[in-house]
Amino acid sequence: MGGDHAPQATLDGARQALESWPDLQLLLVGDEARLRGALSAHGLSGALESRFELVHAASVVDFHDEPMAILKEKKDSSIRVAAQAVREGRADGMVSMGHTGAAMVASTLVIGKLEGVERPGLASLMPNLSSRPTVFIEVGANIDSRADHIACFALMGAVFAEQVLGVASPKVGLLSVGEEDSKGTAVTLEAAERLRGMDLNFIGNAEGRDVWNGRFDVIACDGFVGNIVLKSAEGMAKMVGTGLKGALMSSLRAKLGGWLVKPALQDFFKQLDYREYGGLPLLGIKGVSVIGHGSSDGRAVKNGIGAAIRAVDGRLHERIQARIAQLAPKA
Amino acid sequence: MGGDHAPQATLDGARQALESWPDLQLLLVGDEARLRGALSAHGLSGALESRFELVHAASVVDFHDEPMAILKEKKDSSIRVAAQAVREGRADGMVSMGHTGAAMVASTLVIGKLEGVERPGLASLMPNLSSRPTVFIEVGANIDSRADHIACFALMGAVFAEQVLGVASPKVGLLSVGEEDSKGTAVTLEAAERLRGMDLNFIGNAEGRDVWNGRFDVIACDGFVGNIVLKSAEGMAKMVGTGLKGALMSSLRAKLGGWLVKPALQDFFKQLDYREYGGLPLLGIKGVSVIGHGSSDGRAVKNGIGAAIRAVDGRLHERIQARIAQLAPKA
Repeated sequence: MGGDHAPQATLDGARQALESWPDLQLLLVGDEARLRGALSAHGLSGALESRFELVHAASVVDFHDEPMAILKEKKDSSIRVAAQAVREGRADGMVSMGHTGAAMVASTLVIGKLEGVERPGLASLMPNLSSRPTVFIEVGANIDSRADHIACFALMGAVFAEQVLGVASPKVGLLSVGEEDSKGTAVTLEAAERLRGMDLNFIGNAEGRDVWNGRFDVIACDGFVGNIVLKSAEGMAKMVGTGLKGALMSSLRAKLGGWLVKPALQDFFKQLDYREYGGLPLLGIKGVSVIGHGSSDGRAVKNGIGAAIRAVDGRLHERIQARIAQLAPKA
Repeated sequence: MGGDHAPQATLDGARQALESWPDLQLLLVGDEARLRGALSAHGLSGALESRFELVHAASVVDFHDEPMAILKEKKDSSIRVAAQAVREGRADGMVSMGHTGAAMVASTLVIGKLEGVERPGLASLMPNLSSRPTVFIEVGANIDSRADHIACFALMGAVFAEQVLGVASPKVGLLSVGEEDSKGTAVTLEAAERLRGMDLNFIGNAEGRDVWNGRFDVIACDGFVGNIVLKSAEGMAKMVGTGLKGALMSSLRAKLGGWLVKPALQDFFKQLDYREYGGLPLLGIKGVSVIGHGSSDGRAVKNGIGAAIRAVDGRLHERIQARIAQLAPKA
């Protein structure tokens, strides 16, 4: 029920996902009457009917609600009911396109944190010109992180890179203001020290530019910095996209050229499109939770479901749990 | 003598600047014999000869030197000799394209900090689709800033927007992870509190995307975050630029279209090009210092000199000094 285009986009995405993954079974969580009335318009009929069920949730978390609303006045919200289904093992994972904060709270408090993980972290896959993205963690506004939180983000990001992206011995970096080990804040310097002592392929400091060049498989940072970098990138992409469109309409010559280059540009920009990843995995919880962009369309929803499937297939949270013990402070 | 293309780029830029601003007088600081031998090849001859002089400096700070090297083993470096000329009033300002850290140290310790300014801040002009850029401060890796440092960055950025960009009552934002006043780190929340009590048009929190949409005239942050956002943007721009070029070469159709759209794209990307601003002003010192990108070409150097001229004409450091008193803690 969440997101700017719900439930149309979520239903479209659900259908696309059911068509793409023949073994997939879905719970569609939301206002049952409203969803039921919209099913056939979105192709959720015929043979697909045996592969999903509707789970009623009476309310929705709005963008102006506090994330904590799910604990009190919105206990019956779709996001909380979905998280409950994961907690109870009725679902292997959940995918949501609504209120990011509420989805993080539902995932953390209802599904629950892994033992030894104090702060789950939201990861973003950052595109570059190589064949695989960089796992950038944390971007969910986990602020004022301690060094051990950042080390935990790095470890969880590395397990994600291994299990979901299939990277052997992923190269892990710590976001800072220079490559030299001496560069960083008090917190990042301590985090680097911890990372050097862990069973990780820790390369050292990464700089802002390294988010985009594929030099690292995983880059870890505090959620304050990560969230700002991610939103800055979204803002810059929007500005450049608008400017490019304007430039390609600025003269007859540009318009003709624009028509000719359109297919090539579309292919390129598709590579960079967040909708290709469909959503951000929240790592460090006892299950799978993928949190998508509010503006997600059907394709993004489908890809978000795909991201959840890969996390489930990679037994992501079990693998993270198995490796988290090394985070414990040394005796 | 600093920068990747010195002294060619600096001499080219010097000539362009002398031609652009008829009242400009330049000191060219560096290895005198080397500079003298290169003057005529860069057009610094004839009528222009009366408008510049060579000032000898025996050494150059290399990229692998520590910034503090200028205080000991490289006292005779071009960056320090240039700063000395500003300190002694022989120059109104300095422009450098070399080692950023060394330029910051020379500006801060040789030219000296304004009274009441504990940490000078490097500002970057961030382009957007409106007619004027956003002053983004601090990007020079002033890390672990206290709330009063960030408030000072905001104040100095506002004076810059007024005096150099000509913005009346510039809209000031504080970089954070959400618009709501409750969003931020312990440090940004305290900085916001200070900013609300100051004589500034403080709007509240800015998000990462606001760096690119012109909603704010000034956005202040700790140098750790600012430096990472700036370098991330440079990295993303490079990645997108490379990808676009590749896309426009990917087929015959794309190549033909690319040739047609080239002028329009060049106009647009010129708008976003850091070389248009030529360098970053360091605010909070007793003079003018503009620090350019190491990869600057002649045009960037010329524009850096232009940025210094505007700062001198706007009596920037005097105006900052006049308004800094309000930063003092309330009795």
